[in-house]
Amino acid sequence: MVKSTPLRPVRGGERLAVLLPGMGAVATTAIAGVEAVKRQLAKPIGSLTQLGHLRDEEGRPGARLADALPLASLDDLVFGGWDPIPDDAYQAARRAGVIDARLLEPIRPALEAVRPMPAVFDPAWVRRLDGPNVKRGSLRARAEALRADMAGFLERNRCGRGVVVWTGSTEVYALPGPAHQSLKSFEAALDRDDPTIAPSMVYAWAALKSRLPFLNGAPNLSADVPALRELADREGVPTGGKDFKTGQTLMKTTIAPMLSARLLGLEGWFSTNILGNRDGQVLDDEDAFRTKEVSKLGVLDEILDAGRHPELYGEVEHKVTIHYYPPRGDNKEGWDAIDIFGWLGYPMQIKVNFQCRDSILAAPLVLDLALLTDLAQRAGEKGPLEWLSFFFKSPVTAPGRAAVHDLFAQQTILHRQLARYARGASAAAESAVG
Amino acid sequence: MVKSTPLRPVRGGERLAVLLPGMGAVATTAIAGVEAVKRQLAKPIGSLTQLGHLRDEEGRPGARLADALPLASLDDLVFGGWDPIPDDAYQAARRAGVIDARLLEPIRPALEAVRPMPAVFDPAWVRRLDGPNVKRGSLRARAEALRADMAGFLERNRCGRGVVVWTGSTEVYALPGPAHQSLKSFEAALDRDDPTIAPSMVYAWAALKSRLPFLNGAPNLSADVPALRELADREGVPTGGKDFKTGQTLMKTTIAPMLSARLLGLEGWFSTNILGNRDGQVLDDEDAFRTKEVSKLGVLDEILDAGRHPELYGEVEHKVTIHYYPPRGDNKEGWDAIDIFGWLGYPMQIKVNFQCRDSILAAPLVLDLALLTDLAQRAGEKGPLEWLSFFFKSPVTAPGRAAVHDLFAQQTILHRQLARYARGASAAAESAVG
Amino acid sequence: MVKSTPLRPVRGGERLAVLLPGMGAVATTAIAGVEAVKRQLAKPIGSLTQLGHLRDEEGRPGARLADALPLASLDDLVFGGWDPIPDDAYQAARRAGVIDARLLEPIRPALEAVRPMPAVFDPAWVRRLDGPNVKRGSLRARAEALRADMAGFLERNRCGRGVVVWTGSTEVYALPGPAHQSLKSFEAALDRDDPTIAPSMVYAWAALKSRLPFLNGAPNLSADVPALRELADREGVPTGGKDFKTGQTLMKTTIAPMLSARLLGLEGWFSTNILGNRDGQVLDDEDAFRTKEVSKLGVLDEILDAGRHPELYGEVEHKVTIHYYPPRGDNKEGWDAIDIFGWLGYPMQIKVNFQCRDSILAAPLVLDLALLTDLAQRAGEKGPLEWLSFFFKSPVTAPGRAAVHDLFAQQTILHRQLARYARGASAAAESAVG
Amino acid sequence: MVKSTPLRPVRGGERLAVLLPGMGAVATTAIAGVEAVKRQLAKPIGSLTQLGHLRDEEGRPGARLADALPLASLDDLVFGGWDPIPDDAYQAARRAGVIDARLLEPIRPALEAVRPMPAVFDPAWVRRLDGPNVKRGSLRARAEALRADMAGFLERNRCGRGVVVWTGSTEVYALPGPAHQSLKSFEAALDRDDPTIAPSMVYAWAALKSRLPFLNGAPNLSADVPALRELADREGVPTGGKDFKTGQTLMKTTIAPMLSARLLGLEGWFSTNILGNRDGQVLDDEDAFRTKEVSKLGVLDEILDAGRHPELYGEVEHKVTIHYYPPRGDNKEGWDAIDIFGWLGYPMQIKVNFQCRDSILAAPLVLDLALLTDLAQRAGEKGPLEWLSFFFKSPVTAPGRAAVHDLFAQQTILHRQLARYARGASAAAESAVG
Repeated sequence: MVKSTPLRPVRGGERLAVLLPGMGAVATTAIAGVEAVKRQLAKPIGSLTQLGHLRDEEGRPGARLADALPLASLDDLVFGGWDPIPDDAYQAARRAGVIDARLLEPIRPALEAVRPMPAVFDPAWVRRLDGPNVKRGSLRARAEALRADMAGFLERNRCGRGVVVWTGSTEVYALPGPAHQSLKSFEAALDRDDPTIAPSMVYAWAALKSRLPFLNGAPNLSADVPALRELADREGVPTGGKDFKTGQTLMKTTIAPMLSARLLGLEGWFSTNILGNRDGQVLDDEDAFRTKEVSKLGVLDEILDAGRHPELYGEVEHKVTIHYYPPRGDNKEGWDAIDIFGWLGYPMQIKVNFQCRDSILAAPLVLDLALLTDLAQRAGEKGPLEWLSFFFKSPVTAPGRAAVHDLFAQQTILHRQLARYARGASAAAESAVG
Repeated sequence: MVKSTPLRPVRGGERLAVLLPGMGAVATTAIAGVEAVKRQLAKPIGSLTQLGHLRDEEGRPGARLADALPLASLDDLVFGGWDPIPDDAYQAARRAGVIDARLLEPIRPALEAVRPMPAVFDPAWVRRLDGPNVKRGSLRARAEALRADMAGFLERNRCGRGVVVWTGSTEVYALPGPAHQSLKSFEAALDRDDPTIAPSMVYAWAALKSRLPFLNGAPNLSADVPALRELADREGVPTGGKDFKTGQTLMKTTIAPMLSARLLGLEGWFSTNILGNRDGQVLDDEDAFRTKEVSKLGVLDEILDAGRHPELYGEVEHKVTIHYYPPRGDNKEGWDAIDIFGWLGYPMQIKVNFQCRDSILAAPLVLDLALLTDLAQRAGEKGPLEWLSFFFKSPVTAPGRAAVHDLFAQQTILHRQLARYARGASAAAESAVG
Repeated sequence: MVKSTPLRPVRGGERLAVLLPGMGAVATTAIAGVEAVKRQLAKPIGSLTQLGHLRDEEGRPGARLADALPLASLDDLVFGGWDPIPDDAYQAARRAGVIDARLLEPIRPALEAVRPMPAVFDPAWVRRLDGPNVKRGSLRARAEALRADMAGFLERNRCGRGVVVWTGSTEVYALPGPAHQSLKSFEAALDRDDPTIAPSMVYAWAALKSRLPFLNGAPNLSADVPALRELADREGVPTGGKDFKTGQTLMKTTIAPMLSARLLGLEGWFSTNILGNRDGQVLDDEDAFRTKEVSKLGVLDEILDAGRHPELYGEVEHKVTIHYYPPRGDNKEGWDAIDIFGWLGYPMQIKVNFQCRDSILAAPLVLDLALLTDLAQRAGEKGPLEWLSFFFKSPVTAPGRAAVHDLFAQQTILHRQLARYARGASAAAESAVG
Repeated sequence: MVKSTPLRPVRGGERLAVLLPGMGAVATTAIAGVEAVKRQLAKPIGSLTQLGHLRDEEGRPGARLADALPLASLDDLVFGGWDPIPDDAYQAARRAGVIDARLLEPIRPALEAVRPMPAVFDPAWVRRLDGPNVKRGSLRARAEALRADMAGFLERNRCGRGVVVWTGSTEVYALPGPAHQSLKSFEAALDRDDPTIAPSMVYAWAALKSRLPFLNGAPNLSADVPALRELADREGVPTGGKDFKTGQTLMKTTIAPMLSARLLGLEGWFSTNILGNRDGQVLDDEDAFRTKEVSKLGVLDEILDAGRHPELYGEVEHKVTIHYYPPRGDNKEGWDAIDIFGWLGYPMQIKVNFQCRDSILAAPLVLDLALLTDLAQRAGEKGPLEWLSFFFKSPVTAPGRAAVHDLFAQQTILHRQLARYARGASAAAESAVG
């Protein structure tokens, strides 16, 4: 039986701040899209909260999410963010080149109103970018300045709630170190300008400290360290991450479950990507790529159970490469060569060429994650929201629990949770009526 | 709560006849594979019954099927069949060219022992093939001869049970007509040599009349007409079909659910296939292709719900073509060009090139379907086994019920049923102990 | 030693009419392109006459064509044409959707001035199109009306010379019949409205009769029948054709010469095309496709010499298919699966996916062919210009001579001829100076 | 007019030694192939000398090479070589896994007779390989030992002539240094064990010193330094290289000439390769890859003339990557994404997937190069044979001359030279008769 989860009602007129560290192609595509959708100039394709339905385990659709769940409406959203480059959202969207000028013009004033606050930025962590719109001072001072930014933004914009979604770059690869083991050691590290504290961690700290959920669209460690899990737990704030599942990994976690369902063996999976946007430029740095690579390589191990099936998945050669290739701009292209084998071991090949658009696939996830995490916070959840794994390449779990990568298992888990919320909402409505 | 389904126990030493109308590449690859696996010369890759585990809705694996369910063992299987070409299974396998000579040699005697019985064959229904090993006489006489074949085979081989799996060709396209509306009209049609009775229907009739389940690996109507549903119901025999889900449709029902899960729109899906085996030759006949085309085109409509999502799936251009191209032999190649769109309507493209092997993908399905349907019969099920949709391009349902095509929804439905059987088996074991 | 060919000088201010039967995507892309290039809004990429250099056999470049040859300049061209749909070139270009609105706006007046004259059109020859802007009356009357159109156009636009380039649709497949065997029988057939006279033949007849060269961008028979060869010869007019070499065949005649050069064997070549423009719609008619298919299939036989190399090319399975697939519009997509073999017979595979744009590839050929054929006429050439084979899928030759299909052999032949003209031009210049 | 080149006649029964430093997949595939062809077990597909014809500039074929040129016959060849791994050619061929066991068995004794002599090997130059069958001592001592090997081999096998073809690995990247500037400095460097002398240079030195032509199938510097050019010149020995043109570069130099011929622009060309053989393993070392990358990147610059066509080729993004991916073995796979543009700058895409076999493409080149270079030596040529550029990724030229990369220009150049030899041979035959 599906349990019901009660939801805190929202005061009339209360708005939701969506704060985006990193206002490049993904962020501006999300913001511009919401503005265009509000004016009915375009459709929110790819957004579960805007177009989706509840769904049972056997795939039968139920009510529209928007009807069944008390989600924030697009009209209640207020976007803000930070970026080292001081362009407003209109300029940044033009530079990103994802959305046609024709579509941007009618929403230009709304976009021009979104100006990035000065960023916490460190070229040691993101080497291929730079910009003047940055905070100065000690780490602690910059961290506190972020908290002030958040509080000020919510107040200025009459937002009763807020969500922070990292839409910034991939940072260089790092493993959790001593500074990340407890909140106390983390804050001590802030005080001494410890170089192992990455900017994305500072944002996560400031968000959680401000009781704003933190969602991580990049593979960076960010909130995924003991210190910040402790903080999320103490403050009762939900978190989610890591790394938006778009493009090649989305396809990979679609196809691998078929292999597993049909007990087809896998000898190797070679994945290459070419992309020409800021993301590609950042990942051209080998240390940044390492962070991404770890995120991308992890997905097969869980879906293809080598422990149970050494004869099928015991020796998979899995390679992932990314190449910065400017001709494409934001139009990423992935090529996968998949070497499988079937009955009696006979080999077969699948090749997938995915000519996708990075920001077009990621933008609706920014929106869905903001709305669903807001819902979770109103339901009193805290810590990593495992049921959001559907949206992430590298889902964060509670310590000791394995992440689920199979897109369709993730879908089942997500919809079970949504069904619980829908019951809670419906129960609340009934009791309100009663 | 998962219900439990009791299973009829099997007498010790009782063998299972697997009877295959059509002994070409698929049938001989299945037979040779089972023989090779029994001798541990190769592995039954791709077979759920041999390698799979139970699985809950969220994808967590349970016990091995082979441990949890009282399936017939490979050693208990006896293969037989019919074909217009009189080659034994060894010769037919050599001609099909799917399995290496090296692997065939050690199992040659076992294969040579499998000689096709004379077939009910009609070049009006399968125009590109012919052969001398056919039954003569009236339709009724040939139908009764098939029944005699079945009874004789079971007796000669000491088989307490049997299953008939159509591994023959695709017949020319036909819709149900007057002769197919009731068992009475069907048998009258048999008596008057009615040309609307296809050979595959005669096999289905003979099987059901003999209380042997009939499974349909081709898209032919066969048992999927009211007359034979009536017979299956009256005799209490399970049926399953139609058209093994392999190759391109397998990929299509893998990828389309991702589009649906992520609310990505679809503008068009162009699928082409090149194949050079007997199947390709038969489908080079436009009327046979029509049967296949209808089977292949149906899958997207159910997965992509245009009724609920006219903005995403309201105007899908879906094309499927098949070309006979001898250089490939059994190594089918599919190419899909998929035109999707995302956030704000921006277009993206997916291209899939699947270099697969028709018979390698189909052979384990023959085995799984035989074992699972035998189980269903022992559990007292009759009529179309909808929970086998996982294996079929064009799943047969009870009248008025929509087929499920989403591979992962099919997987959930299949595993729920397997869990019921596992409970029944476990309960039986306990009561036997008690 | 390269011979020199003298060229008739052109009177100052003399303009060249470029008359296009069929003003769809190809024609309007050519016209709009020339207008844009004249205004330096875009570059004539893909045009040999505008960007190319002379070239010796070993590939060493010489002078720019535009410097070495007395070609008509873009400013001297005047475009006109015929179409059953009465849209002017601006409207037709918008409808074709090949060129961005942004680029069309500044040249709108020039395009609006190009209005199609009423066409000689017959839905029996092009079944999937229709339109009201057509000539009525007997075949003879319509043929004479075309001649009057041509004469009138040249006079109105002060054109001393003119060229007719068929940019219309592919007609249904036909072989030369009795009516096409001599000029006399042809004209008698005109008089009796003989149904074997295709509209494209009427245009060719009218052009040649008016001493305007006729070039054929489609695979239709058109001028490639004895009757019209006789007429071209009698009137001393050059002709050229058939079927612009763009897209898949361009790639095929690029790759096949490599196989031949390297003595690699070919087992099969499977080509499929999806396209959604008017061309695709027309070719969806099986009889029109047959015309195209014959044109496309011919190219391999000449390049891969099965007579000399039965061991390499003796049993090639060559298949070409075209599918109308509206999502793509003018953006044609070709997919080739090429099965080759090398040392000791080992197989290898090449797959080519060409996402091209039909009209973008064809438009510069319209321009080059008009200018080069005008040059040939001034040099006194008549009949089929074999040295233009570089531009055609199905090059027309003098009777009894084999066509060359190898793109690089065609290039050599073309450049030898251009060198002859360049010598002639240079000699003329010298003697003028002297 | 084609000149004629006289050829030194060959004494009856004189045999030709083909000596191969590096006896891995390429070498053993060549040797085994020749043995199989001699016994008519297989065909020498891909070999110009065995199957090709003379050819004029317009592509018209002439006499068979084998008839027109006094090439050494396969029966006159004796194979030998060096390798750090002591396996004989049979074992090495089995290990390489390129040729079926079935084909190897009948030629097993011939292959077992080919045992590698101890190699000059240095893991500093080829880091991913190692083996015990190596020469010891000073560089000079090892160089002299090679000379002794060569002399001994020729004598033992009654070979009047010999050719050395490097079929070994790619060495780490190096530029010519002081030691390579003159023969004197080179030999002094040998004497002091200078680490800038690569093993492949030692082989080249020994070959040239022994008056054996040296051909280079890898991109290593080898004979392409002033010191060894001096030696070749002094001893009157022809040389050829570098880097067999197979696979992706073969395709690239096929397709790029089409772009150039048609004046289509190029924005970017992304090439990736996956391969799993010893070659792939060696190239997994970044410094070895650098050598290969330089060789592969160079080809576009010459074919696409950015100087003459900045508007077409002024800003090409050209990337080449190679990935070691064991599942494929010798079955290399290349994927090219080519971004081109046409008329008015409109973009189009070509994608090429080449599933080739490295050694199958390279083996016939070994044979052709040995026979043609032997011919050149008999004709008295010395130094780099530019007319062999057809076979190489990175053709060596005389100092100051640009290499030609266009496959079809290379073909023209090659066939002009062959025509000269054919004339010489025919003149000699006539004078012998006379």
